[in-house]
Amino acid sequence: MKSLLDEISNEKSISSEKLQLLKSSVVIKHIAKGEILRRKGEKPEKFYFVKKGCLRSYAIDEKGKEHIFMFAPEGWIIGDIESHVKNMPTQLFVDAIEDSEIEVFDKKIINLDTQLLQPKLALDKLTKRVAVLQKRIILLMSATLQERYLDFIQTYPEIVQRVPQKMIASYLGVTPEALSKIRNDLSKHK
Amino acid sequence: MKSLLDEISNEKSISSEKLQLLKSSVVIKHIAKGEILRRKGEKPEKFYFVKKGCLRSYAIDEKGKEHIFMFAPEGWIIGDIESHVKNMPTQLFVDAIEDSEIEVFDKKIINLDTQLLQPKLALDKLTKRVAVLQKRIILLMSATLQERYLDFIQTYPEIVQRVPQKMIASYLGVTPEALSKIRNDLSKHK
Repeated sequence: MKSLLDEISNEKSISSEKLQLLKSSVVIKHIAKGEILRRKGEKPEKFYFVKKGCLRSYAIDEKGKEHIFMFAPEGWIIGDIESHVKNMPTQLFVDAIEDSEIEVFDKKIINLDTQLLQPKLALDKLTKRVAVLQKRIILLMSATLQERYLDFIQTYPEIVQRVPQKMIASYLGVTPEALSKIRNDLSKHK
Repeated sequence: MKSLLDEISNEKSISSEKLQLLKSSVVIKHIAKGEILRRKGEKPEKFYFVKKGCLRSYAIDEKGKEHIFMFAPEGWIIGDIESHVKNMPTQLFVDAIEDSEIEVFDKKIINLDTQLLQPKLALDKLTKRVAVLQKRIILLMSATLQERYLDFIQTYPEIVQRVPQKMIASYLGVTPEALSKIRNDLSKHK
């Protein structure tokens, strides 16, 4: 099972003192499908690393409709850097779409003064996140639904079969009917 | 005039030897409005810090339509982290929408082994970029055009009056007519 704590522990440059501090601050949580970890308007003090299961973060628009910002299956992190950078309440809800096991980190560990999360590791994670977000925007703006669906499969190969169709549609910003049509078209061309 | 080179030089932790190496590798370029710095399909080896003027990056869809991914007025950086992370050709064009003065950095400087760009500074820039991208996606998916326009003004206050309307419309993903209507509505409510 993937573990961010293990990954940090394996960094050679971290002192045993800091590692001890880090280990004592990380909490392992088991959460049930449907459980809400964070609501819009809160100020997140934690971020979550998914060891098992799947979380998602989502916005709810003024008409009450859900829009999925991201999925976080095994190995992904859900935080809220926008809220962190601007010191503002979050725009996003976070819940579990499967029974999940997560590592809960205090966001203090990304503070460079504490140096609990090594800069190299933090840079690596952030750089990859920027890449995912950049691609998402370009696709949202300029790609066909088929290209966006294929990108979803590429980004999240492990959850294509696990996530309800209506959630994939919400992530892609289309109706479940339009998604269903694309999937049918693609299976015919295989 | 803003300068990333100055900002890096002011970091206390950088050695004079590394600073010398950095300074010798940065090129200052003057580019004319309309000049294309990068085309889709290239593998970017450089990133650009804008000292003066304004760059933009954009995708062109299969129908030949432009979609602006981002503007980079004074103080912004245009690179292509997605292409860097995946070691793939870029999806984006970059050109100057005003006569501009830029600092051209080799992407090697973000390599942690060279340590030319201090981790603290790199983390700061990356974190802010993630915040901008996250907000952009949430707005693209779930906000009204008016909210998206107000966010554009907040993100890029210095260029609202400088950028052609059709480019703002392209950034927002709407027609120039829809943008014009929103601007009229907003000016009436002032």
